[in-house]
Amino acid sequence: MRLTELSAANGELDMEQFAYSVDIGGTSIKIGFFSGGGKLIEKWEIQTRLEDNGSNILPDIAEAIKAYTERNHIDFESVAGIGVGVPGPVDSEGTVNKCANLGWNVTDVAGIMKTLTGLEIVVDNDANVAALGEMWKGGGCGYNNIVFVTLGTGIGGGIIIDGKIVGGTNGAAGEIGHMPVNTAEKEQCGCGKCGCLEQYASATGVVRKANELLKDPGKSSGLRKLTNITSKDVWLLAGQGDEVCMETVAFFGAMLAQGLAAVACVCDPDIFVIGGGVSEAGKPVIEAIRQEYRKLAFHASSDVLFTIAKLGNDAGIYGCAYKMFSSRI
Amino acid sequence: MRLTELSAANGELDMEQFAYSVDIGGTSIKIGFFSGGGKLIEKWEIQTRLEDNGSNILPDIAEAIKAYTERNHIDFESVAGIGVGVPGPVDSEGTVNKCANLGWNVTDVAGIMKTLTGLEIVVDNDANVAALGEMWKGGGCGYNNIVFVTLGTGIGGGIIIDGKIVGGTNGAAGEIGHMPVNTAEKEQCGCGKCGCLEQYASATGVVRKANELLKDPGKSSGLRKLTNITSKDVWLLAGQGDEVCMETVAFFGAMLAQGLAAVACVCDPDIFVIGGGVSEAGKPVIEAIRQEYRKLAFHASSDVLFTIAKLGNDAGIYGCAYKMFSSRI
Repeated sequence: MRLTELSAANGELDMEQFAYSVDIGGTSIKIGFFSGGGKLIEKWEIQTRLEDNGSNILPDIAEAIKAYTERNHIDFESVAGIGVGVPGPVDSEGTVNKCANLGWNVTDVAGIMKTLTGLEIVVDNDANVAALGEMWKGGGCGYNNIVFVTLGTGIGGGIIIDGKIVGGTNGAAGEIGHMPVNTAEKEQCGCGKCGCLEQYASATGVVRKANELLKDPGKSSGLRKLTNITSKDVWLLAGQGDEVCMETVAFFGAMLAQGLAAVACVCDPDIFVIGGGVSEAGKPVIEAIRQEYRKLAFHASSDVLFTIAKLGNDAGIYGCAYKMFSSRI
Repeated sequence: MRLTELSAANGELDMEQFAYSVDIGGTSIKIGFFSGGGKLIEKWEIQTRLEDNGSNILPDIAEAIKAYTERNHIDFESVAGIGVGVPGPVDSEGTVNKCANLGWNVTDVAGIMKTLTGLEIVVDNDANVAALGEMWKGGGCGYNNIVFVTLGTGIGGGIIIDGKIVGGTNGAAGEIGHMPVNTAEKEQCGCGKCGCLEQYASATGVVRKANELLKDPGKSSGLRKLTNITSKDVWLLAGQGDEVCMETVAFFGAMLAQGLAAVACVCDPDIFVIGGGVSEAGKPVIEAIRQEYRKLAFHASSDVLFTIAKLGNDAGIYGCAYKMFSSRI
């Protein structure tokens, strides 16, 4: 398909406004081709090759983009550039300061990708670009003071103020999973500290709490029939009135509410956008948080909005495209 | 003194760069006359007249500024405007949404002051302008990602990202005194919630903790000789090895560190600037916080700087002037 056909097919007429976006994960790399109007024209995935300290990752991406460009007869001049999301802290020049999941040491992602492709490159942390994606075309659409929270194996976050990502001096802004919420905790978080929000309100944290409650033989629960409990099971059974699961969900809500009330005391956002695996349970997740949040938040921020993220795993590629387009304004 | 003499006396030659700044408090109003280079040419105070719902406050300020301008033969054209700091939440248009300390209901400070003086007006919350002042000419000078914390009767805060104050959707950004840090607390904070940072790390919180420890007759303390304990007494005696005071200071440090570690997970600043009455105890305050902070902070933010504020009660008027000048760039 030629570029004119690609754009006509999506109701876009501006030939000059396209961008690639790349969301690099530890297993696969998502690549998207976007119009400036925010249409995802095509997306596909390639494998993340971790061997040789991840040295093939950027050349593989460049190769995939070149092949797509040639195959579709896309004029390089019509491409604004490539937005890249990486799972690690990124400085304002587009250099990644170590990325254990990819095997990278300090890596000048922007410089290397520019050399490999000849295109303009912008780079940011994966949680940050996901936040931008949700602002542009997802749950945060219409707002520009947004806190995006991903509840998965861990907890990630992205803080947007006046439409811009807050990066932080060390690229660690929005690391709300590692906010201290329980100084009495004895078990260690993955980060080495004890009592981080992530230990209670991630998918892992939900399962941990459920298992803890199951130690009490007096509590009945459908979870006892399962060999491998997941966060999904907990939400499902909580909806059916399961005692242990309801207690787990209430605890999750209280801990996350405490963390988000603290976040609101810092940046007082319009809206919290909740994403990640846990958010797939939908409305009950928001309900579990909101009630507790209202008790713990400063009164001026108590009416903040809560919503579930809309873009799922595509949030990152949307955000990379947005970051690329907005860097040219 | 004529304007030319005023400016020559301060080594300033640019005739067009002056600003008034006004920091409105519940007892007195501080007024400053600044050069664009950041020199405080003159400062004085007038009384805050609270009668009639504070309706005299803005006219009194306008009168004081007019009188100063005439007395010193200052050309109105050479004055960029007036920066005003108020003790309450302010929206981006310069309207104050209630201000209990001044007796004000919703008040269009910017509009009223512009009508009264004919000058350009910018308005912000007092903690926010104090933060800007400390960034411009105080402890945060040279940095542009700053968290300013005032430890007084309560705890106030101002968050600066990329040189700009974060206001928040409801004007409540930087309200770090009301961050939940202890969900087990039974006593109420002034805000109506229980377990706010302000209950432990303000001057009031320090005295409260000391009194709590004094209930144990087994603990020796010089505080027992005093009829009215102040936070200053606690710091003084802690420096002399007093058991109760040292324990109080350690508790203060741990609680504030927990709060600031949470703040760093949101915005990852360059530096924490600690002001307010408690900060007058100086270096021991920083020491009490820093050690605990390093235990609780996310590793990427553990080397953040801590410093004592430098401008004392003048931070607000410096910040108002800065806000006025920077609004014209």
